[in-house]
Amino acid sequence: MSQEKLLLIPGPSPVVPRILDVLAKPTVSHVGPDMVRDLKEACENLKKIVFCENGEPFIISGAGTLSMEMAILNTAGPGDRVLVLSQGYFGQRMADICRAFGLEHDVLECEWGKSVTPRELEQRLRAKNYNVVVCTHVDTATGACAPVEEYSQVLDKTGALFIVDGVCATGGVPERMDAWGIDVVLTAAQKCLGTPPGLSILVLSEQAMEKRRSLAAVPAYYSDLLRWLPIMHDPSKYFSTPGVNEVRAFAEATRIILEEGVEERFERHDLHAEAIRAGLAALSFGFFTDPDYLAATLSVVRYPDGVDDKAFRAGLYENGVVVAGGLAQTLGQVFRMGHMGNLSSAQVKFAIGAVEKTLQGLGCPFKPGSGSEAVNKVLKA
Amino acid sequence: MSQEKLLLIPGPSPVVPRILDVLAKPTVSHVGPDMVRDLKEACENLKKIVFCENGEPFIISGAGTLSMEMAILNTAGPGDRVLVLSQGYFGQRMADICRAFGLEHDVLECEWGKSVTPRELEQRLRAKNYNVVVCTHVDTATGACAPVEEYSQVLDKTGALFIVDGVCATGGVPERMDAWGIDVVLTAAQKCLGTPPGLSILVLSEQAMEKRRSLAAVPAYYSDLLRWLPIMHDPSKYFSTPGVNEVRAFAEATRIILEEGVEERFERHDLHAEAIRAGLAALSFGFFTDPDYLAATLSVVRYPDGVDDKAFRAGLYENGVVVAGGLAQTLGQVFRMGHMGNLSSAQVKFAIGAVEKTLQGLGCPFKPGSGSEAVNKVLKA
Repeated sequence: MSQEKLLLIPGPSPVVPRILDVLAKPTVSHVGPDMVRDLKEACENLKKIVFCENGEPFIISGAGTLSMEMAILNTAGPGDRVLVLSQGYFGQRMADICRAFGLEHDVLECEWGKSVTPRELEQRLRAKNYNVVVCTHVDTATGACAPVEEYSQVLDKTGALFIVDGVCATGGVPERMDAWGIDVVLTAAQKCLGTPPGLSILVLSEQAMEKRRSLAAVPAYYSDLLRWLPIMHDPSKYFSTPGVNEVRAFAEATRIILEEGVEERFERHDLHAEAIRAGLAALSFGFFTDPDYLAATLSVVRYPDGVDDKAFRAGLYENGVVVAGGLAQTLGQVFRMGHMGNLSSAQVKFAIGAVEKTLQGLGCPFKPGSGSEAVNKVLKA
Repeated sequence: MSQEKLLLIPGPSPVVPRILDVLAKPTVSHVGPDMVRDLKEACENLKKIVFCENGEPFIISGAGTLSMEMAILNTAGPGDRVLVLSQGYFGQRMADICRAFGLEHDVLECEWGKSVTPRELEQRLRAKNYNVVVCTHVDTATGACAPVEEYSQVLDKTGALFIVDGVCATGGVPERMDAWGIDVVLTAAQKCLGTPPGLSILVLSEQAMEKRRSLAAVPAYYSDLLRWLPIMHDPSKYFSTPGVNEVRAFAEATRIILEEGVEERFERHDLHAEAIRAGLAALSFGFFTDPDYLAATLSVVRYPDGVDDKAFRAGLYENGVVVAGGLAQTLGQVFRMGHMGNLSSAQVKFAIGAVEKTLQGLGCPFKPGSGSEAVNKVLKA
């Protein structure tokens, strides 16, 4: 095993020992009392995290992409029109999924690093009717955070179901399902929720469940949420063996979130994002994402003149921090740093310290300590 | 947390500490060097476990049911005819999956506790052509093990692809893909492979991959194995974040299997099955499954006269062993005991000792020590 590094890619996020300890508990029966209690509690807690009173939560072995598929297959059928608000990589993926299943769909795109504006959405909806509108809340490739609350205000006047892909947002950025009229939040375990990857996670509103029931059939079996519903209500029932250890670890993750407080968690994500960006800016890094759309959960960072992507990331790795390179059109031009999940202030400081060390190792000119100083100023404010 | 019990349900099987320790390692990058090495090694080892030289292995976050779906969606399309050899619960499930996706299929059934005979298969194939034939190797509900090698001899004369659902068999009962001409083995992590649940696992032959490539499109996105193929060849590439901790734990599980020796592992499963059945028979239990079809991986056990199902299983639980009740038509009439994965002889002895204690607690007449004596006789032979 390589020496342990601080994992600051845009997911998986670092997993705290308390969650790893639960993950490593002896595997219990998938329909036994320990699992029943933990899956039920995880479902209840999940609803609190997305502010949903009466919806239906689903926690199923899979990944974020499977959550996306589950969300759209269970809310759109033949004759439905889907509008995908795409701000980058994962909007395109949602369009690909619609295509794979033959769902009629349009894509409303924007420049990478920004989001589709509520005004653009409004104009499109005046021109054409849609049954389902889906947006990526935070795009992992571009670092842009979409104005979900404002979208929901626009959609309020239509009968369209509203799906929010919260893979890089849920638990780190507000998603107030009931208040905003969101019908589906889909996400994965390994981002702001702080659990190892391996779960597809969704919450559907009552309207979304009604829509599922109105679909005669869906081109899905494992992804058919109606097959999972009885298990989420009573985990002692059997459909397909859930990932026992993962689910129990996720239950612990939701406990940690509620102990911290959901609002406090959002504030911490804001604070850490501000601190990290202040530190990086002090070291002459820039940001790819439009300042109006910066996400609290990750930063897409432009290099100072003369700093090479590969050399920088290799150096940073040696100094104990793993970040990701650019995706698609930003490849080689940026690095992406996640700052989400159960990150501590000490880890934020460590990360910027490691960036300074790396610049030093590469012989780049900078004022030693200036990054850390900027971080501390934000954290102490 | 409840006190730890010996988990002898027909999956999940008990997970040894060595695998739990790997599961609990800090989460690493899904495209980083540790994960690349482990996923590659797991893929190579998996091929050895099913005796496949040139096929394509897939290890994907999910469950056994998703493996079933992946197997059939990637080998059968419009115009294909599927024959499902059903010996119980999971054959019916495969038929349900075919129905959900509109695949033309027939079901060849048999009495619960037996398997469809090779002769019945031969007769059916004389009457009608099929492009894909799928069987459950060991049915978890009935405890019957199908004559897969003999099926393959019958199928050898046809051009049909042969899918084996090895969820309760792979790694505990021989599945010699190349020698027998099996085109797909599908399975899950938590049975004979001894890992916690959370993975869909498949190996496809070259013929099966050719068939997938010949299908213009499949009604799948996450389940489309062509999307996963580049990742299985080079895990530093990205499609959808794999379950890092689960995959690394599974890699460790495959190492344990190869260290034991695959043939030796099959022999151990045979021996433990024989020992457990000798012990239970000495205590006046009977078996639901036809003696010609007894699986080495689990037993479906009939009670002696006057022993109540619920009282017995509750008592056994108190004595440290978890077993499962009957499924569907056997509910209340049998218990199902798994004996698969990384079970030790000491655990086999403990299990029969716990059965004796339970009978004693219920006031059932039996010769004390007779069960354990029968077990020891087999294990020492």
